[in-house]
Amino acid sequence: MKNDLFLRACRREHTDTTPVWFMRQAGRYMPEYRALRTKYTLLDLCKNPELAVQVTLQPLRLGVDAAILFADILLPLEPMGAPFEFAQGEGPVIHAPIVDRAGIDALRVIEPEDGLGFVLAAIRLLKKELPVPLIGFAGAPFTLASYLIEGGKSANFLKTKRLMLSDPESWHALLGKLAEVVRRYLRAQIAAGVDAVQLFDSWVGQLSPDQYRTYVLPHTRHVLQDLEQVPVIHFGTGTHSLLEAMRDAGGSVIGLDWRTPLPDGWKRVGYDRAVQGNLDPAVLFAPRDVAEREVDRVLAQAGDRPGHIFNLGHGILPETPVETVQAVVERVHAHRKVR
Amino acid sequence: MKNDLFLRACRREHTDTTPVWFMRQAGRYMPEYRALRTKYTLLDLCKNPELAVQVTLQPLRLGVDAAILFADILLPLEPMGAPFEFAQGEGPVIHAPIVDRAGIDALRVIEPEDGLGFVLAAIRLLKKELPVPLIGFAGAPFTLASYLIEGGKSANFLKTKRLMLSDPESWHALLGKLAEVVRRYLRAQIAAGVDAVQLFDSWVGQLSPDQYRTYVLPHTRHVLQDLEQVPVIHFGTGTHSLLEAMRDAGGSVIGLDWRTPLPDGWKRVGYDRAVQGNLDPAVLFAPRDVAEREVDRVLAQAGDRPGHIFNLGHGILPETPVETVQAVVERVHAHRKVR
Repeated sequence: MKNDLFLRACRREHTDTTPVWFMRQAGRYMPEYRALRTKYTLLDLCKNPELAVQVTLQPLRLGVDAAILFADILLPLEPMGAPFEFAQGEGPVIHAPIVDRAGIDALRVIEPEDGLGFVLAAIRLLKKELPVPLIGFAGAPFTLASYLIEGGKSANFLKTKRLMLSDPESWHALLGKLAEVVRRYLRAQIAAGVDAVQLFDSWVGQLSPDQYRTYVLPHTRHVLQDLEQVPVIHFGTGTHSLLEAMRDAGGSVIGLDWRTPLPDGWKRVGYDRAVQGNLDPAVLFAPRDVAEREVDRVLAQAGDRPGHIFNLGHGILPETPVETVQAVVERVHAHRKVR
Repeated sequence: MKNDLFLRACRREHTDTTPVWFMRQAGRYMPEYRALRTKYTLLDLCKNPELAVQVTLQPLRLGVDAAILFADILLPLEPMGAPFEFAQGEGPVIHAPIVDRAGIDALRVIEPEDGLGFVLAAIRLLKKELPVPLIGFAGAPFTLASYLIEGGKSANFLKTKRLMLSDPESWHALLGKLAEVVRRYLRAQIAAGVDAVQLFDSWVGQLSPDQYRTYVLPHTRHVLQDLEQVPVIHFGTGTHSLLEAMRDAGGSVIGLDWRTPLPDGWKRVGYDRAVQGNLDPAVLFAPRDVAEREVDRVLAQAGDRPGHIFNLGHGILPETPVETVQAVVERVHAHRKVR
């Protein structure tokens, strides 16, 4: 591997510059991705290893220090018995959302080779020639459960919380199954060759710390326990009140969104962890000089302590100007860290 | 006034029981409100003082300790020059969202009597016979600006943040106008007779503390400065990282959402403020015994310190069972505070 900056920062080793990559760095803001999407659906791209490799490599021209496998957090749901599709402009639609215990009991606790082999094949192909580390990923049990129960995106996660609060036994049965599948899936990705993994608990910021510790933490811990072979990034949005609990659940790198000031967040998760973040994705819509000023602010807040990976506080938005993404990479790399 | 429990708690005086009211306590979850809505639109109800009074009084049968004027935070926008409507099931739609400086310059800094007289008339009618305190309210400058710029609800507040970051001069011109109107509006409500006011900065939790202090705090402070005649409740959602900054902007009572543990939030805003909150609105969809257990948890977390007003962490959701709302009121009132 020519460039291991990202992995060294994950291990909190000194690096002269700060590594940078972006959540959803392969996606609709790139013209070459949009060109592919005129011929293929999102799921086509995920399920065909050659195409997934092609998309994964697209953002490397921007100079990012890591590649993240092109896939979707929902992929394990189909082989578990919950097929879904991406409706035009509306996000994912689960064909038969879970409404009762029978729906939970019917979910299969699969082996990754059994239904997710295309992901592992893409990883093996990618590892042959990648100049930067490859990040694998999965959705966390809470976030996956919310899609299964709500049937798609949700504003207030009402059905999810109703099951969680009203029928904790069924809730824990559901999260237990998801956690075991995600645990196996991340391990299979590591065995196939990824250099790091990120667990996306994108919507867990809807919960209070009490709710998180009671209904989520044991399952996330099951996923992340003994996952010491590679760096593990644990990420969610709107998690300012959950940071200590998420750290307790696991992860050698904690992802911070832009609402958590980096010095405050790092202090709270502890300096024995690395941190990733946390530029507001909306900043990429501002003029270049404003975006650069905001990059400088994040870098100044991170300071020279080893263990900061530059990223956004959430995924790149589809309409983001690609030139600004490029400018952010250059600005991060122009900054020198003092040992 | 027969029952001043709410006002005494706002002033942090000892009360034997904790006062309780609910954001959006007059609304679609009540059958008598739905019955009225078959004949009138939401704006009809707001603009006719007799109807607004009728709706304001509806939830009093639940035994709440305060009434909140039936109105909408967007009402000042129409007389300012930005008319809107509520589209079926889609929330507010601003007819001509602000796209440039000319749109900001065209907004009128109105006097409340000039276009909002119906609100003040409703307050005067209500004050004649109300057995509990009456709460007036307004939307905060940031939240109003976000509707004006986005044209309605927003997932990521991209246009709002783009203006804020790219053209701070225009941003401050816009927030300055909104702040002056909201300041006058709250003062007019107090002059008309409300016993307390709440400032709703519902969506400000989208900002980082740095963004809040630079782009929002001076304007919110302008609204709340010298508003010492009545208790002032300052509320937003997803504000866990903003609490100190929101307190600095003003408010004798700080509203906490369910993601901020009450003891943590109160300590951070300081014991020289009262706090309001913070049951997760989703809890009202759980069985009665679960909802009661969660009420007990909030009350236990608040402890016996004077200055806690029981409320939800956000507005009552439209499908909430009215019996559970009733059960929560009874449970809060059954609890005794020790002096």
